[in-house]
Amino acid sequence: MKARVTVMLKNGVLDPQGEAIRHALGTLGFAGVEGVRQGKVIELDLSATDKAAAETEVKAMCEKMLANTVIESYRVEIL
Amino acid sequence: MKARVTVMLKNGVLDPQGEAIRHALGTLGFAGVEGVRQGKVIELDLSATDKAAAETEVKAMCEKMLANTVIESYRVEIL
Repeated sequence: MKARVTVMLKNGVLDPQGEAIRHALGTLGFAGVEGVRQGKVIELDLSATDKAAAETEVKAMCEKMLANTVIESYRVEIL
Repeated sequence: MKARVTVMLKNGVLDPQGEAIRHALGTLGFAGVEGVRQGKVIELDLSATDKAAAETEVKAMCEKMLANTVIESYRVEIL
């Protein structure tokens, strides 16, 4: 079973990497980019076969390690 | 209009960051994680209002800057 975790900085947390991308896109001539946020995506191959159990386990991984929940939010998709 | 770009290393390209996550999850007691790949997600706020035009422009951004197409693949979603 595959799971995809998307980790983004929470709204209001400064994202210098996203800001750098926005600026660079402007330099390259892409107008009309009003904001950029960059995050991480983590794709996991799991041996679990039960969808609900897999989701619970991946959420535990996020809380324990994959995301810093003080400043980041995460979304789990089971594929 | 919002767009989401997901950039992943192509299959066959070594992903040491993903491998480090896999190892760390094992250390934390999460068994059954067979593989991990880490990528980037970039969320763009665009002033464009035409969906097809926005998709074409975001793909151009990927080819020019957001992804290194030699070793990375990208996926564009217009939200």
